[in-house]
Amino acid sequence: MSADAQLLALSGGIGGAKLALGLDRVLPAGRLTVLANTGDDFVHLGLHVSPDIDTLLYTLAGLDDPVRGWGRKDETWTFMAALKALGGEDWFLLGDGDLATHVERSRLLAAGETLSAVTERLRSRLGIGSAVLPMSDDPVRTRVKTKSEGWLDFQPYFVGRRCEPEVEALAFDGAEDARLAPGVAAALDDPALAAIIICPSNPYLSIDPILAVPGMRASLENRRVPVLAVSPIIAGQAVKGPTAKMMRELGLEPSAATVARHYEGLVDILVVDEADEGLAVPAGMRAVAAPTWMRTLEDRTRLARRVLEALGWQAGAAS
Amino acid sequence: MSADAQLLALSGGIGGAKLALGLDRVLPAGRLTVLANTGDDFVHLGLHVSPDIDTLLYTLAGLDDPVRGWGRKDETWTFMAALKALGGEDWFLLGDGDLATHVERSRLLAAGETLSAVTERLRSRLGIGSAVLPMSDDPVRTRVKTKSEGWLDFQPYFVGRRCEPEVEALAFDGAEDARLAPGVAAALDDPALAAIIICPSNPYLSIDPILAVPGMRASLENRRVPVLAVSPIIAGQAVKGPTAKMMRELGLEPSAATVARHYEGLVDILVVDEADEGLAVPAGMRAVAAPTWMRTLEDRTRLARRVLEALGWQAGAAS
Repeated sequence: MSADAQLLALSGGIGGAKLALGLDRVLPAGRLTVLANTGDDFVHLGLHVSPDIDTLLYTLAGLDDPVRGWGRKDETWTFMAALKALGGEDWFLLGDGDLATHVERSRLLAAGETLSAVTERLRSRLGIGSAVLPMSDDPVRTRVKTKSEGWLDFQPYFVGRRCEPEVEALAFDGAEDARLAPGVAAALDDPALAAIIICPSNPYLSIDPILAVPGMRASLENRRVPVLAVSPIIAGQAVKGPTAKMMRELGLEPSAATVARHYEGLVDILVVDEADEGLAVPAGMRAVAAPTWMRTLEDRTRLARRVLEALGWQAGAAS
Repeated sequence: MSADAQLLALSGGIGGAKLALGLDRVLPAGRLTVLANTGDDFVHLGLHVSPDIDTLLYTLAGLDDPVRGWGRKDETWTFMAALKALGGEDWFLLGDGDLATHVERSRLLAAGETLSAVTERLRSRLGIGSAVLPMSDDPVRTRVKTKSEGWLDFQPYFVGRRCEPEVEALAFDGAEDARLAPGVAAALDDPALAAIIICPSNPYLSIDPILAVPGMRASLENRRVPVLAVSPIIAGQAVKGPTAKMMRELGLEPSAATVARHYEGLVDILVVDEADEGLAVPAGMRAVAAPTWMRTLEDRTRLARRVLEALGWQAGAAS
């Protein structure tokens, strides 16, 4: 890899952030740009919440709660208790420290800053070395068509209804008219860009919204650098979250093979778990087996190294 | 007093809320309406903060912090620490529980509710028996002209600069065009209204903004019920806050006598501390001495009973 080789990683929340952290730790400083899904963003209690950006920021800054698996460590919940006592909406949990992110982001957006600029400001304050970009500064809102309750906004489906209603279809409202964030377009055009990685996030809920922003899917279809995806499905199961359940509801077999077909034409290398070794993948795609279940920080850096190796990068570049 | 006699109390923050609590505890349920100064209100971090309303709500609900003297008891500060780490504005302290009030109020105001309606909703949820009203649903903003720094908004002067700059003048922006809140006008017109009480709040910072809303001063000048004020100055000193310092800066001797002159023509009875017994007051005003320094809940209910006695109410009506 050249001395200034850049890596662009597409990510949703928890699962994707784990690999992003591994890459951040393994790569030399300034090489990684993480592009976050913003389809889960919503305005709650008048505050702009960007769940996937925040998960990435907290994870990369080492502020994530390793036990709860979401939100910030050393969190307190006084706000929620007081809000509940006032009769406020309490279906979406906002920790006291987490709230600072939403309040500060909302204040800066109201002052006219873009989501990119706000994210960059937060990244810098949290001392994160890798770049973090929203896929777009324009609003894209994932919606879920359910059998029992019709169309639901994402968070009311995901958090409010705990993914219980059966899913028939997904839509990404606003995606058609959204523009890739300036930093994303610049990263894709950067002559130093050496590879694109699709993190082990939900392909339908976390990666598809990114691909729905005009220009993004075409950038992968017409790629001039290798694209590598990591399957979020291990031996037919999702590590966390509703990926496998949703795949079944959408009439898809939850398997790494289905993920491979989903990314056909977009991805050169699919990293699957060792449990799925020997997987048959579409023509033009190569499968690489690696331990993909990331429980510890060591799991994350090890998978990051395996990803870089699969791309032909020297792991010796690792810090 | 008649069976449905109503009392209207004008109040600022801490000092006024102490007497309001005493009255709330001593009066039969449903007799007291507390009218709060909203000149200190401001939008901070995109949130509508109403310091005097909140002090009244927390005090009347028994949620106030008795040690710190402001804000909520059992408060945590995780939000402020996280906000500071993000580079946010940290000159105005917002506790995690307190924040719930501002977020919920801001959400309801943004949804089109009036400040009166929001305050009533919070009062009800907090289980407070007395009514709490903002002086106006229209914005009135106290500003402070300082020698060294010119005009300052109230909170930047009061909290940001800790009342240090010397004060030359005060203004209540928006007061001329503000309308008394509907509940205030109704309380003033209520045939059951039996007396008006001006709590021991700063006459210049907390009571004058209320009197500046068209109709309020005239209601006192043309009163059909007795008006009683409690002096916030005891033997030339303010119990708390910048009242005495500000009086000196405005060329006024800090004394109960100055308070008496300030309320001339508006007030029939001035309750002064026993330390100021024998005070000469303007014609048409009567001074009554009582222990006015309220350190304990017993001090508050005792002063409330003395206030009711001075109005000729039977203390036997007390609960």
